[in-house]
Amino acid sequence: MRAEIIAVGTELLLGQIVNTNATYLSQGLAEMGIDVYFQTVVGDNAARISQAIELARSRADLIVFTGGLGPTQDDLTKDALAAYLNRPIVIHQPSMEKIESIFSSRGIHMVESNRRQAHMIEGSVPLKNEAGLAVGDGLTADGTHYMLLPGPPREMKPMFDGPGKTWLRSVAGDTHRLFSRILKFAGIGESSLEQKLIDLIDAQSDPTIAPYANEGEVAIRLSTKSQSEQEANAKLDRTEEQINQIVGKHLYAREDIPLEAAVIRLLRASGRKLSSAESCTGGLLAELVTNVPGSSGEFVGGVVTYTNMMKHKLLGIPMSQLEGTGAPGAISDSTAALMAERVRERTGSDFGISLTGVAGPSESEGKPVGLVHIGIARPGMPPAVHTIHLSGSREMIRLRAAKSALYRLWLELVDNS
Amino acid sequence: MRAEIIAVGTELLLGQIVNTNATYLSQGLAEMGIDVYFQTVVGDNAARISQAIELARSRADLIVFTGGLGPTQDDLTKDALAAYLNRPIVIHQPSMEKIESIFSSRGIHMVESNRRQAHMIEGSVPLKNEAGLAVGDGLTADGTHYMLLPGPPREMKPMFDGPGKTWLRSVAGDTHRLFSRILKFAGIGESSLEQKLIDLIDAQSDPTIAPYANEGEVAIRLSTKSQSEQEANAKLDRTEEQINQIVGKHLYAREDIPLEAAVIRLLRASGRKLSSAESCTGGLLAELVTNVPGSSGEFVGGVVTYTNMMKHKLLGIPMSQLEGTGAPGAISDSTAALMAERVRERTGSDFGISLTGVAGPSESEGKPVGLVHIGIARPGMPPAVHTIHLSGSREMIRLRAAKSALYRLWLELVDNS
Repeated sequence: MRAEIIAVGTELLLGQIVNTNATYLSQGLAEMGIDVYFQTVVGDNAARISQAIELARSRADLIVFTGGLGPTQDDLTKDALAAYLNRPIVIHQPSMEKIESIFSSRGIHMVESNRRQAHMIEGSVPLKNEAGLAVGDGLTADGTHYMLLPGPPREMKPMFDGPGKTWLRSVAGDTHRLFSRILKFAGIGESSLEQKLIDLIDAQSDPTIAPYANEGEVAIRLSTKSQSEQEANAKLDRTEEQINQIVGKHLYAREDIPLEAAVIRLLRASGRKLSSAESCTGGLLAELVTNVPGSSGEFVGGVVTYTNMMKHKLLGIPMSQLEGTGAPGAISDSTAALMAERVRERTGSDFGISLTGVAGPSESEGKPVGLVHIGIARPGMPPAVHTIHLSGSREMIRLRAAKSALYRLWLELVDNS
Repeated sequence: MRAEIIAVGTELLLGQIVNTNATYLSQGLAEMGIDVYFQTVVGDNAARISQAIELARSRADLIVFTGGLGPTQDDLTKDALAAYLNRPIVIHQPSMEKIESIFSSRGIHMVESNRRQAHMIEGSVPLKNEAGLAVGDGLTADGTHYMLLPGPPREMKPMFDGPGKTWLRSVAGDTHRLFSRILKFAGIGESSLEQKLIDLIDAQSDPTIAPYANEGEVAIRLSTKSQSEQEANAKLDRTEEQINQIVGKHLYAREDIPLEAAVIRLLRASGRKLSSAESCTGGLLAELVTNVPGSSGEFVGGVVTYTNMMKHKLLGIPMSQLEGTGAPGAISDSTAALMAERVRERTGSDFGISLTGVAGPSESEGKPVGLVHIGIARPGMPPAVHTIHLSGSREMIRLRAAKSALYRLWLELVDNS
């Protein structure tokens, strides 16, 4: 079954609100094994809604509307579809009674237009609105299925998930459900990852292998349609193992968690604790790590030493290391090593991680934007230092630097576990 | 001029990402006086992209694409439009050189597909990509204008706002432009702000007054259509002054900058320096502040003391303050005051700001999720402590706590400037 989502609302076309409904509905339909080929947004205009219906009918078996069921004169979806199908509008009595009783219980005068929220297209199955007043419709006409849902997400979601899906199952019959698995990667870019997997991606269509990038991380979604979870898992396991053979040292999770959560898990498993000393990332690494719920067991704390004086005062790094002729400077591998070692000592943690570099927009100490040194101090060994060159905006360099440092620590933890 | 936005990407149809690009582009086009009648989302499929182009051409003068310009074989937008228009693909030499030099400077092997990001449709104006590799296109063919933008928002936004708008103005000609002004507020919620301004909002239609909330901050957009900037500014000034009369103590900027940037400006103007000591926010405040370019002049650094032991080790707070029968505990106003004072002393800064509280998901020290104490140590006065109660997810509580602390500091700086 092919579906199209039509979101109705001029506020969407003006960019006043984000079309999160289309995302939610697409997800829900994909999980039911229904393919969405197009999403359309149209304004509160009867002629253009009609035009969108005409088009969607030509290319979809199911049209899911969201928006335009409210009480105002801008809410046109039901009237437009009824006119298009040449069917009359009828009153859904239970909804009408609910609307009347709510207004009378609140002692508010009900304006006539509120009655519109009890309108239905003749022949529809009513879709109950648990969170609002406008009733929804499920309707099949001339071989096309139509679902009409309200626009506010807190009304739309429960209507779709409850009576909407029940009605959909009754008309869609048995479908193969879509099962997905997310694999998360670090220390590798989206295009390199795809390059390494290209033969695998080209050679197989089930499960599908789709790479995507987001917030400094790279993910692959494996998807397969199946009638049982067991059958799906067997197929997903097989493909995952093939991927693991090729890029296993970058594969840090088999679910959609950020890298810092994987690092915290490894620390927890080995009973070890982490601290941080940040310069160019300004606290971002600490912020990412502490955003993992329960991370206070593994992350003890750290320092943000943004100036040379702070590197001296808070970490005891000699000024002669940082400034003056012949000094390595703040942005150097030896300073990264010292920062990591000192924060480890001062906090008494097992690992100390440090970042010093140039986030931009302009160079610093004559060193180029994007140059970052990562230090990792660890038990019983001298600190490791990694030097990387990043590109992008200030914000992206900071994020990529923090993720790179976490990746280096992750490798350290995996290799020694 | 009528525009249609076509977002290309199967991940949108699967509901894996939200189509925020359509929102951003719709806003930007509205500001230029260009009406958007439809937004369409289509998958990474050449035939369906072609079908979407055909349809959009029939109902729009301008088609803005976003997505599908990347290096992978799923990135089909340019090829599909070139094929539709029957125009060849050419190489944009400056982009090719940039791509080659970035790969060679990083010492990474460049895979062939990366060259695709320098492709252009013959006859296009190149739209420079400041934040990524794929070049964009501005093109007029058979009376229809086409703009091709990348999908990742951090690449799309600067391309649209910079070279994209320049090209659009060159083809769109004179329109009644929409002039907008953003007013930014802190220390007040969206609905309280709207409530206080409701009479003003209801009473006037030009400029329009639209409140919206985003990332822990609240903004108002004033908009007016006008042929001259001077005329628009006079109207915007008048409305701004009316708003300032009512909620001036929350109005921290007359442009779209985050609160931390306004705080840095005030510190800079008075030649004073800031440090931070964070517990529940885990480095988020430092991260926000250091994300402001040039903030190293005003923010010296700070500590993330996530555990009691770190509050003791890094800030010298007595363990008897933090633990044991009758101790105030880590989550207390007196600890917040001590943290702020000690980080101020240890760093030698003028202001020290501290945060200690419960971000969740579960309570701590028997104190409820959302309770946060903010300490502000300042020159020549005892530290100020503010206790707040926040709601939302762990992430939202952390963000709101950091923003609340910045708001308190902002008030301090404004009152004493």
